Amino acid sequence: MNCHDAIRLFAKTLRNLEQWLDKAAEHAKVKSFEVDVLAQARLAPDQFGLVGQVQSACDQAKYAAAYLGGKDAPSHPDNEQTIADLKQRIEKCLGFLETVQASDFAAAQDRKVAPPWLGGKWLRGDEYLTHVAVPNFFFHATMAYAILRHNGVDLGKMDYIGSLPTKEG
Amino acid sequence: MNCHDAIRLFAKTLRNLEQWLDKAAEHAKVKSFEVDVLAQARLAPDQFGLVGQVQSACDQAKYAAAYLGGKDAPSHPDNEQTIADLKQRIEKCLGFLETVQASDFAAAQDRKVAPPWLGGKWLRGDEYLTHVAVPNFFFHATMAYAILRHNGVDLGKMDYIGSLPTKEG
Repeated sequence: MNCHDAIRLFAKTLRNLEQWLDKAAEHAKVKSFEVDVLAQARLAPDQFGLVGQVQSACDQAKYAAAYLGGKDAPSHPDNEQTIADLKQRIEKCLGFLETVQASDFAAAQDRKVAPPWLGGKWLRGDEYLTHVAVPNFFFHATMAYAILRHNGVDLGKMDYIGSLPTKEG
Repeated sequence: MNCHDAIRLFAKTLRNLEQWLDKAAEHAKVKSFEVDVLAQARLAPDQFGLVGQVQSACDQAKYAAAYLGGKDAPSHPDNEQTIADLKQRIEKCLGFLETVQASDFAAAQDRKVAPPWLGGKWLRGDEYLTHVAVPNFFFHATMAYAILRHNGVDLGKMDYIGSLPTKEG
């Protein structure tokens, strides 16, 4: 899985996440509650709620594409409040991911990646992908799924995985 | 992230998971409850509990190493009941992962991977890694973390990520 494959996997999973949000809206309709109650749902009081998990999943994908592709990450302020806002945030993120081409990742392996939270230290590009971007992206995507699942939304593993490029013969 | 990097990342995360289980045991001691209550904890009644999530994380790592490395996966029966059992399951899985060498993955990209649940269809090795093994492994690892976090175990993001090969200068 090279950098471009990873970014495409993040984009696929964010599109799956949009479907989970649609399923949340269906669930809310059937159960006659306001879907945006779920935006603040969380699994522990000192953990991000759904809004924060979706924002973080988007940011992990955005920063991975920017750092590894040698681009400036666009600013996406964390001002979402509703499920509809979260879908827009995902779309903004996907729009940026599409601007980064496979060729932009040619030098990714050897880039020095020094996000502010590393306090001046850095990781090689391939290490950032393996040790930070991949586990963190799936952490936040799975937490968003877990929050919805815990609240009764009808999600299953194939909603998480999405389509597979299977072959016959 | 090549196949060997991915398997090493899974192994690192499984070792982190052992630490989460140790933190669960500490939490149970402080709160004076039987730690194995957590083994059956779950986020939704129709979802795997902690035991199933840890078994599944181990199996995703084991089968990825076996399918992509061209090895037979050892049988690890799902008979765990306690937190101590889960730690042993992780150790068994790690033992197998260590037997698969970087050179075993030389042909991984082009292997036909046809797990039983694909019902006769198959994925190319690189597709299996990207579309199945990576997202599924982190799904189950994160669900295990989420179940413990939801039950008050003192876990934070660095427990999830573990050590980073940061550099200075």
